[in-house]
Amino acid sequence: MIDDFKEYRERMNERILASDNKVIKRIFNIDTNCYMDGALSARVKEMLGLATSMVLRCDDCIKYHLEKCFELGVSKAEIFEVFAVADVVGGTIVIPHMRRGLEYWEELEKKKSSEL
Amino acid sequence: MIDDFKEYRERMNERILASDNKVIKRIFNIDTNCYMDGALSARVKEMLGLATSMVLRCDDCIKYHLEKCFELGVSKAEIFEVFAVADVVGGTIVIPHMRRGLEYWEELEKKKSSEL
Amino acid sequence: MIDDFKEYRERMNERILASDNKVIKRIFNIDTNCYMDGALSARVKEMLGLATSMVLRCDDCIKYHLEKCFELGVSKAEIFEVFAVADVVGGTIVIPHMRRGLEYWEELEKKKSSEL
Amino acid sequence: MIDDFKEYRERMNERILASDNKVIKRIFNIDTNCYMDGALSARVKEMLGLATSMVLRCDDCIKYHLEKCFELGVSKAEIFEVFAVADVVGGTIVIPHMRRGLEYWEELEKKKSSEL
Amino acid sequence: MIDDFKEYRERMNERILASDNKVIKRIFNIDTNCYMDGALSARVKEMLGLATSMVLRCDDCIKYHLEKCFELGVSKAEIFEVFAVADVVGGTIVIPHMRRGLEYWEELEKKKSSEL
Amino acid sequence: MIDDFKEYRERMNERILASDNKVIKRIFNIDTNCYMDGALSARVKEMLGLATSMVLRCDDCIKYHLEKCFELGVSKAEIFEVFAVADVVGGTIVIPHMRRGLEYWEELEKKKSSEL
Repeated sequence: MIDDFKEYRERMNERILASDNKVIKRIFNIDTNCYMDGALSARVKEMLGLATSMVLRCDDCIKYHLEKCFELGVSKAEIFEVFAVADVVGGTIVIPHMRRGLEYWEELEKKKSSEL
Repeated sequence: MIDDFKEYRERMNERILASDNKVIKRIFNIDTNCYMDGALSARVKEMLGLATSMVLRCDDCIKYHLEKCFELGVSKAEIFEVFAVADVVGGTIVIPHMRRGLEYWEELEKKKSSEL
Repeated sequence: MIDDFKEYRERMNERILASDNKVIKRIFNIDTNCYMDGALSARVKEMLGLATSMVLRCDDCIKYHLEKCFELGVSKAEIFEVFAVADVVGGTIVIPHMRRGLEYWEELEKKKSSEL
Repeated sequence: MIDDFKEYRERMNERILASDNKVIKRIFNIDTNCYMDGALSARVKEMLGLATSMVLRCDDCIKYHLEKCFELGVSKAEIFEVFAVADVVGGTIVIPHMRRGLEYWEELEKKKSSEL
Repeated sequence: MIDDFKEYRERMNERILASDNKVIKRIFNIDTNCYMDGALSARVKEMLGLATSMVLRCDDCIKYHLEKCFELGVSKAEIFEVFAVADVVGGTIVIPHMRRGLEYWEELEKKKSSEL
Repeated sequence: MIDDFKEYRERMNERILASDNKVIKRIFNIDTNCYMDGALSARVKEMLGLATSMVLRCDDCIKYHLEKCFELGVSKAEIFEVFAVADVVGGTIVIPHMRRGLEYWEELEKKKSSEL
């Protein structure tokens, strides 16, 4: 599930960038720079990316930010608090995305423990 | 299709509630209470839940409210009128969800007739 | 507040229809037909219109459906239950629209009692 | 992928129209008329349909308008400029839909070249 | 109405850019580049900007793109066809924005004729 | 501007709670509890509330979370980074809300310095 998602995203991103559309290239650049350490830590910014992706209900974006949060050591209790804010602000329509988000998070946990 | 959807929803809801996040638990509680008989009947409220889920384009939420409407005896002609209001208010982007919604409704009809 | 809103809406609708754009004219026609008595009563349909307008957060649409609900004798307790479903489904971002919606409803009540 | 999508859409549209709900029938009619040549060409209108479907993030609508754009001879460079506007206006949450949109466009290209 | 809107937008944009946040600066840059002549004309791109702003229901964005369309010689009949696509795709919740959009367009017409 | 906004919000919230609708009362309760210190600090949660309100484009919600962030000592540079994430995720339609958000933040700064 994790590997398929990554492979598809990377393959299609390459095809998009091959188009040589400058505006799109620059959006991809900004998207990377936006989440780097600055006045706020990358950790907090990835949680902001996760919460906004949840209320806008974009499963692929949720997965992406969950991965980044996982790499940056965000705890499961913290993830649930991000979920809680997103559910409160965005309503019960966010719940199906929380279900799929939790499933993905637990895949990340399993993958890591199988690699130890 | 119906059983898979229910099984997944229930399994993940259990995992979510196992997190012991109080805010999320209370949202799940409100979500249940919200659709009970009151000044408006549960029947009307489930139709409100269906229509709002359609314009916000949440397939899982649509399936959930279709199930509840089906259990409460909402007729197919009534469901189509809920679909019509949602299409008018939310535009043609609602149509793909109406297609999947109708497919699910007809699964519910088939399941019931096979159980008789 | 009520009269200004109606006057503006009617004046601009006239200007829109004066454009003689057939697609827009037909949308206006459907919008009227959609809320008529059918398998569901106009009353229930106006509540569906209200709830969907709330989760999509369109203040003008909310006012319009509140007027129609008021004319059709929907009670204040019923309106609050529509508000409740919209708040649950759409989250706390619906609350500012509920505040303005309640203000408008109470204007409708005042106007009616001043006319008696 | 293309044929499955078309077959499903057509089969369910037939079932929807079989319901004989007049409002829904008229929405389907308008949806067809809306994209015909007029003050603007069908070509420009299909690009408007594509861009709006992207920012509203409806994959089925995106596929539908990509097909129409393809039939009307819109070039790949033009499609990428539509993608670029949609990404700028709608943000990075549009990117996953651009990935799936490009995949579908390339399926349309493959299908056409295999038919020559 | 036109001058107030422009003055406010320019004044606040200056304050935003004074913050020296690189990500935001680059977004402003892309926003400008995105609508320049390329595979598609600036004229078509501004119409794409208008249509997407309408379905996302952002009045300030609608005004901005109406101004650009006006400067680039888009006709009133063409604007109404953009409105029509946006109404069909986005539903009746787009109508209040069409009313305000038309009002702004007619202000632009008046301003121009008073300057001749 | 700040006082008017607070006064209106409080007055209408009182009227809403006077309705004695249990579901709405409980939503108001959760809304308060959600932003308290927990696995994440109130400070981070208010930034999550701000970012989600921006991408969902709710000016009143933005103002509310800006106030809370201001009280909790979030710096202006941090606020701009929240704005940046929201702009990247949600697109240029978020910019008008950033303009009004910055205006409100600077009102909070002025009010505080006038009180010293």
